[in-house]
Amino acid sequence: MRDVVVVGAGMTRFAKYKDRGLKDLTSEAVTAALDSAGIDKNVPQVAIVGNAAAGLSTGQECIRAQVVLREMGIDKIPMVNTENACASSSTAFQLAWLYVASGMYDVALAVGVEKMYSAERGANMGLFGAGVDVEQLREIMEQLKPPSEKKAGVESGAGKSRSLFMDIYASGARAHMEKYGTTKEQFAKISVKSHVNGSLNPHAQYQDRYTLEEVLASPMISEPLTRLMCSPIGDGAAAAILMSEEKAKQFTTKPVWVRGSALVSGSDHRAEDGSTSSRAAARAFEMAGMTPRDINVMEVHDATAPAELLLYEDLGLCAEGEGGRLVDEGVTEIGGRLPVNTSGGLLAKGHPVGATGVAQIYEIWLQLRGEAGARQVADPKVGMTENGGGMVRGEAAATTVHILAS
Amino acid sequence: MRDVVVVGAGMTRFAKYKDRGLKDLTSEAVTAALDSAGIDKNVPQVAIVGNAAAGLSTGQECIRAQVVLREMGIDKIPMVNTENACASSSTAFQLAWLYVASGMYDVALAVGVEKMYSAERGANMGLFGAGVDVEQLREIMEQLKPPSEKKAGVESGAGKSRSLFMDIYASGARAHMEKYGTTKEQFAKISVKSHVNGSLNPHAQYQDRYTLEEVLASPMISEPLTRLMCSPIGDGAAAAILMSEEKAKQFTTKPVWVRGSALVSGSDHRAEDGSTSSRAAARAFEMAGMTPRDINVMEVHDATAPAELLLYEDLGLCAEGEGGRLVDEGVTEIGGRLPVNTSGGLLAKGHPVGATGVAQIYEIWLQLRGEAGARQVADPKVGMTENGGGMVRGEAAATTVHILAS
Repeated sequence: MRDVVVVGAGMTRFAKYKDRGLKDLTSEAVTAALDSAGIDKNVPQVAIVGNAAAGLSTGQECIRAQVVLREMGIDKIPMVNTENACASSSTAFQLAWLYVASGMYDVALAVGVEKMYSAERGANMGLFGAGVDVEQLREIMEQLKPPSEKKAGVESGAGKSRSLFMDIYASGARAHMEKYGTTKEQFAKISVKSHVNGSLNPHAQYQDRYTLEEVLASPMISEPLTRLMCSPIGDGAAAAILMSEEKAKQFTTKPVWVRGSALVSGSDHRAEDGSTSSRAAARAFEMAGMTPRDINVMEVHDATAPAELLLYEDLGLCAEGEGGRLVDEGVTEIGGRLPVNTSGGLLAKGHPVGATGVAQIYEIWLQLRGEAGARQVADPKVGMTENGGGMVRGEAAATTVHILAS
Repeated sequence: MRDVVVVGAGMTRFAKYKDRGLKDLTSEAVTAALDSAGIDKNVPQVAIVGNAAAGLSTGQECIRAQVVLREMGIDKIPMVNTENACASSSTAFQLAWLYVASGMYDVALAVGVEKMYSAERGANMGLFGAGVDVEQLREIMEQLKPPSEKKAGVESGAGKSRSLFMDIYASGARAHMEKYGTTKEQFAKISVKSHVNGSLNPHAQYQDRYTLEEVLASPMISEPLTRLMCSPIGDGAAAAILMSEEKAKQFTTKPVWVRGSALVSGSDHRAEDGSTSSRAAARAFEMAGMTPRDINVMEVHDATAPAELLLYEDLGLCAEGEGGRLVDEGVTEIGGRLPVNTSGGLLAKGHPVGATGVAQIYEIWLQLRGEAGARQVADPKVGMTENGGGMVRGEAAATTVHILAS
């Protein structure tokens, strides 16, 4: 396969947009990506668009790519619509890479776009139900109630499948606390760090900083998760332009190479196989001929603060059970040995689900080009993204890992 | 890129299934494909699933592949969910081909599955609305009313977006009649032919034959389309196993090669650019180093009988305006020079939209292996599929063409 370069990337600010739809958000992100690559809209030869929720939020199924891209004058070229829940657009990015790496096309456009909020309906909570096996939704929610609620017969977030995912994350956090003595304060420190980073990112949905006390005192969503440890609802789009090495030479002197691209699904044998994140990372490292020690900056799927801590362990940043220590030592802060979620992550940058995968790529691309402004990491050479989506039988349905290098 | 072989394929019968869901249908088709390839479910290294309507018909969005395949014990491997309306699974087939052709994986599984009918709700008409730009639905329906209905102020299929697509096809048929003198009888002959073929196909939804008079006398849907000139609502699944040349040698002595794979989108400049079908065919022929004269058997997207006639011209089987003559000469019947839709096509085999693309591949695969039973074409060497999906601004949103050869 050929070497592939990310030549351009762009994104909208993530936010709750009262008056903006999928077309408008896509157009802004794609235009920014094209401009950064120095090409016009007729140059990409194939487009892959990841979106998770348009079917539920706007009724637009089936041909989302064609509808949003034609509006901005992109037509004729092959367009593929991909879904993998919260990993929809990192899946699109893998396909864009594959179209170029295979030699089929020289220039590919990968897009992630999501509209979760509407002025009429507010945050569309219902859409999260579609990220699991809908036939098992009720059963899953029952299993995940915290012990106190089970005992009291409390309906845990009844009717709110958003809460389903938060319950899943809370359950994992409690297990980690029990097994390794990890503390609420350690989870909260991750939220403090990511909001500091978000305050330095003009594309972040939330740009305020919070103290440890404020994070711990914010409303409880599902023990031990407070609201400030959970990613918000929002809208947005992100886009990336990928080119073959030869083509890229015409357009950039700052190439960002795709060194590894892995996608995996959940397994019925997680105990033996490891998590989706660890399996995807292992494959991506193998492709890149690298180890976790080679990574200088990383974006991970911190749908909650505890999820980020668990990912430190799954992705090989530290041994199992050592995630809390890593937090206390500040290793993953900007200025630490391995900064994680310099963008603010899902917690502060926001998480319009289908847009997240390519938005992570955008952050690493900026960092590797030295263009991340106030949140720039000192001279990173290799970056990594990890993006998880959906759930089947208690595990992520789809997880991607990408390794990029300058 | 590497040469790729379709080693196995299988499908369910297309039908209105009262008691069968997406998981059950997928399992039958995938098992048939695995069995025909002589491999077990652990051999495929990547799976791509095309589906158009599950979000609307069952609420299952986002992770359809993982939900349906894990049920039959396929997990861990990369899974990609694709949508392109009626071309969803031929898009999945292109991606499966790409994963193998690129060298990334040696064995790929492509699946199409659809559930349009439910015992409670009957045929789910609403889902067709999602194959267009939903923001333009009302406007499109107004433009497409036949002149008589516009004059009389009749609501053309109000509330039934199924009828929207039939109105589009009827509009194209009327224009062809006016311009070239094509007759209703010529359209009806295509329906007669396809129902003869369907009567020879145990997987066809409709296996009855009809006379020319019966086709013309069946209820009018949208002038000149009678019901027997329109594809039905149904459920079903189809699957194909693709392997690299080297891997395929271990499993088959009857290789069916993928020689061309093209996907295109609609254009705002159809007059200059040609239709999506003609552009996709041109690209596939270029990849294969072939011309229409090399094709011995063909499956095309006959959502209606007139659509098939127009495709004869778009795909280069005859000159523009000559489609009617081709029909009268019996060229596309089994036994003719170039048999089209030997499976019965969408008209008789049925059209569970997301399943259609891979089901077309299955028919050509059978024909090229000489395993099509009573409908076998005499010793075909090269076959082709054409599959169109959705609509943006009056043209197909996505069209694929694949060329296969023994």
